[in-house]
Amino acid sequence: MNRRLIFKSIGSILRIEALLMLFPLVVSLIYGGGDYWAFLWSILITFAAGMLLASIKPKNRNFRTRDAFVVAGLSWFLFSLFGALPFLFSGCFNSFIDCVFEAVSGFTTTGASVLTSVEGLPKGILFWRSFSHWVGGMGILMFMMAALPSINASSVNLLRAESTGPSPDKIVPKIRQTARILYMIYIALTVLLIVFLIISGLPVYDSLINAFSTAGTGGFSSLNASIGGYNSLAAEIVITIFMFLFGVNFSLYFLIFDRKFSRFIRDAELKVYFGVVAAAIIIIAINISGLYGGFANALRHSSFQVSSIISTTGYATADFNLWPTLSKVILVFLMASGCCAGSTGGGIKLIRFIILFKAVKIELGKIFHPGRIDAVSINGKRISRDIVSRTALFFFVYFAFFILSVILVSIDGHDIVTSTTSVIASLSNIGPGLGTIGPAGNYSAFSPFSKIVLSFCMIAGRLEFFPVLVLFVPSVWKKGLIK
Amino acid sequence: MNRRLIFKSIGSILRIEALLMLFPLVVSLIYGGGDYWAFLWSILITFAAGMLLASIKPKNRNFRTRDAFVVAGLSWFLFSLFGALPFLFSGCFNSFIDCVFEAVSGFTTTGASVLTSVEGLPKGILFWRSFSHWVGGMGILMFMMAALPSINASSVNLLRAESTGPSPDKIVPKIRQTARILYMIYIALTVLLIVFLIISGLPVYDSLINAFSTAGTGGFSSLNASIGGYNSLAAEIVITIFMFLFGVNFSLYFLIFDRKFSRFIRDAELKVYFGVVAAAIIIIAINISGLYGGFANALRHSSFQVSSIISTTGYATADFNLWPTLSKVILVFLMASGCCAGSTGGGIKLIRFIILFKAVKIELGKIFHPGRIDAVSINGKRISRDIVSRTALFFFVYFAFFILSVILVSIDGHDIVTSTTSVIASLSNIGPGLGTIGPAGNYSAFSPFSKIVLSFCMIAGRLEFFPVLVLFVPSVWKKGLIK
Repeated sequence: MNRRLIFKSIGSILRIEALLMLFPLVVSLIYGGGDYWAFLWSILITFAAGMLLASIKPKNRNFRTRDAFVVAGLSWFLFSLFGALPFLFSGCFNSFIDCVFEAVSGFTTTGASVLTSVEGLPKGILFWRSFSHWVGGMGILMFMMAALPSINASSVNLLRAESTGPSPDKIVPKIRQTARILYMIYIALTVLLIVFLIISGLPVYDSLINAFSTAGTGGFSSLNASIGGYNSLAAEIVITIFMFLFGVNFSLYFLIFDRKFSRFIRDAELKVYFGVVAAAIIIIAINISGLYGGFANALRHSSFQVSSIISTTGYATADFNLWPTLSKVILVFLMASGCCAGSTGGGIKLIRFIILFKAVKIELGKIFHPGRIDAVSINGKRISRDIVSRTALFFFVYFAFFILSVILVSIDGHDIVTSTTSVIASLSNIGPGLGTIGPAGNYSAFSPFSKIVLSFCMIAGRLEFFPVLVLFVPSVWKKGLIK
Repeated sequence: MNRRLIFKSIGSILRIEALLMLFPLVVSLIYGGGDYWAFLWSILITFAAGMLLASIKPKNRNFRTRDAFVVAGLSWFLFSLFGALPFLFSGCFNSFIDCVFEAVSGFTTTGASVLTSVEGLPKGILFWRSFSHWVGGMGILMFMMAALPSINASSVNLLRAESTGPSPDKIVPKIRQTARILYMIYIALTVLLIVFLIISGLPVYDSLINAFSTAGTGGFSSLNASIGGYNSLAAEIVITIFMFLFGVNFSLYFLIFDRKFSRFIRDAELKVYFGVVAAAIIIIAINISGLYGGFANALRHSSFQVSSIISTTGYATADFNLWPTLSKVILVFLMASGCCAGSTGGGIKLIRFIILFKAVKIELGKIFHPGRIDAVSINGKRISRDIVSRTALFFFVYFAFFILSVILVSIDGHDIVTSTTSVIASLSNIGPGLGTIGPAGNYSAFSPFSKIVLSFCMIAGRLEFFPVLVLFVPSVWKKGLIK
C-alpha cells in the first residue's frame, strides 16, 4: 500500500469538494436564506483538511490497483462526511447521523431523505442536496480526472475501481480524454434539460434543482410532493424522457457524436433497456388504469414511474405504494435491475443480466454438446470467462449484502416490506421503496443504527461493492505494508 | 436424443409408482376409509401406462447426459401427474389442478397444501400425501437405481441430473452401490424416527405419517395445526432433532458408518449448518421471548421453527407469521438458503454459499496480488473453476426464476408478502410462507394459473433448474434429432 499517495489523493478530492461548495454559497447569497454561514464554515474546514492531506509528500509514485480501490472506497466515505457539514451547520437536521445519511444519499444519487418536509428549507441547502446528486452521478474520481490538469495517480486503476458495469469502456485511447468527453456529454445533456424545464414553465431555481437531481438520477426534489407537486404535464414529460436518457450508457452518446448510428441502434443493452421499459410501462398502465380513470392517465403515471425507478432516480408523480401488487413487484424488480452500465444510474445493471442469460444458455448447450466450448459475446465482442464469472459473483455479493443488511435493519421492527425495500432502495440508489418509505414517506422513522447500515448500503451499491469490501481486508489497516 | 430409451426409462419409473401405490391401498383397506377404489384405479392406469412405455424397444443403448436430463425433467412431471390420480378419484379435491398441485407438492417434498382442512380426509389419502414426501425425498431416479436389479440407462448421468448440490458425491466407486447405501441410511433413520415417535406417545398411524413427512423434509401433517396439534413436548423434540438430521448430507452418515469421525466433524458444510442453526435459534428466541412468556418457551418454538425451515420441512408448532420482523426475515432467508447438499432438503444449499464466499475472498485477493492464481477448496479438495462459475450462475438462475414467478403470481393480486414468499416457499420446497400462506394458512386462495406456476417452481427448485430448463430447448421436441 502506498499510504502517503492514497492520503494525498484524498486531499486533492477534498479540495475539490471545498470548491464545489462555492456554488451553493453563491445560491444562498442570492436568495438570502441566512445559510451562507453554514457554507462558509464548511468550505473552510474542508479546504483546510484537503490542503493538509494534499501536502503529504509520497515516497514514490507507484499507484497500484489495490491503492486505487482503497482511494475509491475511502474517498466516497470522506466526501460524504465533509459534504454533511453544511447540513450540520444549517441546523435543519435532528442529528449528525441524519446529516451524514442525507449527504451519502446525495452523493450516491440515492435521494432517500430523513426530512419530513423540504419546503421550508433554505435555498442554499436545497441546492446543495441536488447538486451533490449531480457531482456524484458521474463519479467523484471521474470528476477529479476530468477537472484536474494532472493527477497524481494512475487513472486507469481509478476508473476501474469506480466505474459501474462489468468492464469500463474507454471510448478513446487516453483515459483522461475519455473522462473529459463523458463529462462534456453530461454537462450538455444537463444544460439541455435546464432549458426544457424553464420552457415547461418551472422557475429557474426549480429547473436547476430538478435538472441536477434528474441528471444524477438522484431524486431529491424541492417539493414535498416531488415532481407531482408542479402539476405540469410538460415538466413531467420532459423529466420522464430525461430520466430515461440518463439511464443510457454515456459511451453510446459518444457513438452518435462520432456518427456511428448503426452501432448505437444495435447495442445489446440499449435494446433490452428499451424493451424492459416499454413492457413495464404497458403492463403497469393496464394494471392501474382502474385507479386513474382510464388508460391515458394511467399511461402517464406508469411511464413516469417506470422511467424514474429503472433509472434509479426515485422521483414520483403518484404514490405507487397504493398500486396493485403486480405493479409494485415490477417496480421493485426494476429497482434491483437498474438501467445501463456507464450511466449515472444504480442497480445491478441490465448488461449483467444479458451476460448471465447468455452464460446460462451456453451452460445448457454443454448438456447437449459436452465437448463444445462457447464464449459469451456482447455486441460481437467476446466476453472473457473471468468477466463472466465475476459478473455471476456480483449477483451473489448483491444477495449477500441484501440478506445481511435486511437482518440488521429488521431489528428496528418496521414491517417486512418496509425493511426489505429500504435495503433494495439503498443498494440500488433509488430512494423511495414501499411501506413507510414509499414515495409519500421518508426514512425519518429508522433508528440511527439502521441509518448507518443504509448509508453503508448506498455507498457499497454505488461502488459495486468491491472498493468497499477492500476496506475490510485487514492488511489495508496494518502498518508497514508498503511493498 | 435417444427418444425410445427415454420413454422406456419413464415407463419403468411409472411401473414403480404403481407398485408404490400398493402401500396406501393397504392402509386404506386396514382403516376402511372407502378410498381403496381410488387407489385401485390409479394403480391400474399407472401400471398400464408404465407397461406400455416400458415395452418400447430402443434402437441402441446409448444414453447421454442430455438424455439423462430429459428423463429427470420429464419423470418428475409425469410421476406427479399420475401421483395425482388417487387424489382425483378420491373426490376430496376441488379440481384436477388442485390434485396435481398437491401431488407435486408431495413428491418435491414441499408440503404446500390447497386443502383448508386435512383432518376429515380418508386415511389412505393422508398416507399417500406423506408417503410421496418420503419417495421424493431421496429422489425418484435414485429410488429406481437402488431398487431395480438392472436399469436401462447410464446411472452416472441420471445421478448428476437429479442430485442436489454443485457436485454429486460418490461414496463408493460404483454408483448403484452408492444409491443403495444412501437408501439404507435413509430407511434406517426413518425407522428410528418411527420408533421414537411411537415412544413419544403418538398413535402408530400418526407416527408413520409424520416420520415419512419428516424424513423427506416435506411437511404434510395429519392435523390442521401441524405438529403443534399433538401438544406433545417429546414428539416436538424428536421431530426438531430429526428435521435437523435429515438436512445433513447423507454421505456424511456413511463416514460415521465407515468410522471416519474426524472427517465427519471437520466437514465445512456441516459446521456452517450447525453454526447457522444455532445462531438463528438464539436470535429468534431472544426476539420472540416476549410473546411466549420467557426464554425457555421461546427457545422451544424457535428451535422447532428454525429446524423446520432450514431443513425445508415446513412443520409448525407456532404461527411465525405473527412474529416480529427480525424473526420473520431470518426465517425467509433460511427458506432461501436451505440446508446441506445431498440431503432430502431443498433450497440453494449452504455449500453454494461457502464456495462463493471463498470465491469472493479470492477475487478480493486478486486486487492485492494481481498475478496470483488461487483456487477455492472445500474440505481440502480443490473445486474446479467450472464448478465455481456454475455455482455462481445457479444464484442468477434462482434469482431469475424468482423474479419471473413472482410477477406471474402477482397477477392474482394477493399482498406482496404472500406473493413473494409463496414463490420462495415453492422454489425451496418449504410449504408455508408468510401472509395468507403462513403456517396457519394454505394455498387454496391462489388462482389455477398461479397454482400451475407454483407447481412448476417446486419441480424446478427440486431439480435445481437445469433438468427443467432442458425441456425448453427446442431441439428436445424436434423430430429426427437422434444423433
